[in-house]
Amino acid sequence: MKNSITLGLLGLGTVGSGVIEILNDHKESIQHKTGCDVSIKSVLVHDLNKPRNLPAETQLTENYHDITRDPEIDIIIEVMGGIDHTLTILLEAIEHGKHIVTANKDLMAEHGAELFAASQESGCDLYYEASVAGGIPIIRSIIDGLSSDRIRKMMGIVNGTTNYIMTKMSQEGTSFDEVLKEAQELGFAEADPTADVDGLDAARKMTILSILGFSMPFNLEDVEVKGIRGLSLEDINYAKQLGYQIKLIGIAESDRSGVSVSVEPCLIPIHHPLSSVNDEYNAVYVYGDAVGETMFYGPGAGKLPTATAVVSDLIAVIKNIRLETTGKAYVQPQFSKHLKSKKEQLAKKYIRLHVVDEPGMLMEITKIFAQYDISFDQIIQRATEIETERELIMVTHQVSEEDFNRASNQLHQLESVRTINSIFRVEGDD
Amino acid sequence: MKNSITLGLLGLGTVGSGVIEILNDHKESIQHKTGCDVSIKSVLVHDLNKPRNLPAETQLTENYHDITRDPEIDIIIEVMGGIDHTLTILLEAIEHGKHIVTANKDLMAEHGAELFAASQESGCDLYYEASVAGGIPIIRSIIDGLSSDRIRKMMGIVNGTTNYIMTKMSQEGTSFDEVLKEAQELGFAEADPTADVDGLDAARKMTILSILGFSMPFNLEDVEVKGIRGLSLEDINYAKQLGYQIKLIGIAESDRSGVSVSVEPCLIPIHHPLSSVNDEYNAVYVYGDAVGETMFYGPGAGKLPTATAVVSDLIAVIKNIRLETTGKAYVQPQFSKHLKSKKEQLAKKYIRLHVVDEPGMLMEITKIFAQYDISFDQIIQRATEIETERELIMVTHQVSEEDFNRASNQLHQLESVRTINSIFRVEGDD
Repeated sequence: MKNSITLGLLGLGTVGSGVIEILNDHKESIQHKTGCDVSIKSVLVHDLNKPRNLPAETQLTENYHDITRDPEIDIIIEVMGGIDHTLTILLEAIEHGKHIVTANKDLMAEHGAELFAASQESGCDLYYEASVAGGIPIIRSIIDGLSSDRIRKMMGIVNGTTNYIMTKMSQEGTSFDEVLKEAQELGFAEADPTADVDGLDAARKMTILSILGFSMPFNLEDVEVKGIRGLSLEDINYAKQLGYQIKLIGIAESDRSGVSVSVEPCLIPIHHPLSSVNDEYNAVYVYGDAVGETMFYGPGAGKLPTATAVVSDLIAVIKNIRLETTGKAYVQPQFSKHLKSKKEQLAKKYIRLHVVDEPGMLMEITKIFAQYDISFDQIIQRATEIETERELIMVTHQVSEEDFNRASNQLHQLESVRTINSIFRVEGDD
Repeated sequence: MKNSITLGLLGLGTVGSGVIEILNDHKESIQHKTGCDVSIKSVLVHDLNKPRNLPAETQLTENYHDITRDPEIDIIIEVMGGIDHTLTILLEAIEHGKHIVTANKDLMAEHGAELFAASQESGCDLYYEASVAGGIPIIRSIIDGLSSDRIRKMMGIVNGTTNYIMTKMSQEGTSFDEVLKEAQELGFAEADPTADVDGLDAARKMTILSILGFSMPFNLEDVEVKGIRGLSLEDINYAKQLGYQIKLIGIAESDRSGVSVSVEPCLIPIHHPLSSVNDEYNAVYVYGDAVGETMFYGPGAGKLPTATAVVSDLIAVIKNIRLETTGKAYVQPQFSKHLKSKKEQLAKKYIRLHVVDEPGMLMEITKIFAQYDISFDQIIQRATEIETERELIMVTHQVSEEDFNRASNQLHQLESVRTINSIFRVEGDD
């Protein structure tokens, strides 16, 4: 049995330094668990001249071939991020028989299938726990822990930046723009927050979870995405009055009529376990036929939490190398997917309107909903700053996306409806 | 590679029937994941003549040797419960080269080390995910998901019966005795509720978690146990006023001064993720040096949730059999344990006293605490039914168990202290 393992590290940013820190701090424990000495031979960096605090024997390189083609290196840890160039590097590494541990959700969401195919062919391991929900071992929990069950629904708070923003808005009554600015100053949000705020980051994670949870081949394009830009304090406050928190939720659902995956701000009942997931924390709620409701909660990002997931994967790969069972963990998706049509997508909806306060207004509005058999769970009507206008907030019972869209399009045509201010999905009420 | 696996089942109660149900319902998916046909050959039952709904090819037997010694059987699933007799059966099975999947926490808490030693020697697998927290894959999460981290603290709501009772008391204001009776009628509590209500069941689960989480050899005797018998609505209500829920919490802690494991009713702040774990649900909160706070939530018992854990273990063992890597998963505890003395055990404390309302009373009481350097975080004084008496509720800052015990013993000697009604640990505030 092999008793020493040599690593190559691609990237030495936040997570990369965390990996080095954990490998140092937990050296004995990792030795005990794997029966192996583990050392980092080479690190790919952008700038060779930047001063760094590394063991003397660790080599720095700007040329990735020094790592992908080094016959001494067993496992490559990819924490450099990026998509196309990184794919090229990893494919070359796999071709040279390297096992891969990656934290790269963008890459896995867009090129996971290709990477798996290549590593299968080379008998290599490809582990990626850190790509979804940082320190939470959610990928293993779905692959192994719930392997005997049929997963029906996954709801994830899988983006820490937006959850931080929404928590501050809800708890402190600060506006979206203000909190975003503050989050950027504190380093919780990127200078360009697009991927987080517009839901793309969450969509990538939901793509990865959906492939695993439903054993179907999903692409990023299958995910319907709405972000939280422009989310208003009014809606957060009305939601509270109705017994809900607004959270950016990735929802993946599978039933007889098909599957759907989306990322959008949703109203979640305050008694639901997801509604108390605050600040930058992540959580994935999983509903299985047999197990029922489970939830996995923890830090979704950060240097050491993410590095923990990377090094836990590393330990798994080392065990596989010693047992000579690498390249066996991957299971091909079992099913083909049928994406639900708008007619088949059912959910409760929240809608907030500005209306003119005149006789027959509510009748006209409810008549339109009644045409589509849409009924209501809760309604609030409130005064506005304009004396002749009212704010009308309605939460429907379950309705198809198609019917709801048609009804709300018709609302636009009513003279008594000034504006439709917001529409949200309502989840977790069943 | 082996492509059919034959099982023996010990016990055909609730969980046993659940296992059969899942093996039937998810047959294709299990086949897909393992590459194997899986079938149950024999089942050990108490009564051969009881009518049962089983596949025609399944044999029933009252003689366990028919299963432990059957050369066709690869894996034995133990869901019969019990300790000594079951240990004998499993040791014989392991001697005959059978891999074991068990849901038996009593057995694992008391004879885990012996069973592991035997299965190591025979090159057999021994999996036991279902023994702690039913459907929550907590054992795998600790062994694999957090394998790179150093776990410092685990706090578990790991007994569904007591959590159900305490939730009802808190939400409906019903007394302990009433809720217990109701829970027994609904089947949530056993006719003899001792093991649940007095904390023994939770202590067994915490023993298992502590061995894994801290990689040390714990015994059931290391766990200090207090149950919830006699828990009063007064304390639940005062706790709420102070911002806490009372929960039966298993706490395992490890720091430089040593380790401690306990099960006791604790005050948990309402913003802590454990405080909203209600009804019969379980959750295990894990704090690791690197990962920080994580929590795993789900159903702690029940036919299908527990069976899910059993069959997920089964899938893992089948994969190991096919890869010829059985008997390799177990890792010997790495460290020896030093149990903390009462002096080294630190916690915040809640104490409720009946006192005489007279000048100097509070001074006398606080003087005693001051002698031990104990200071207070919160104090409530309230009227009682007796005009000359008051109820005094105090929450201390961090204090050693030894100092707190000495101080409260001295309180008994004060004339102004009528009774000490209750003392609880306060957790999760840091």
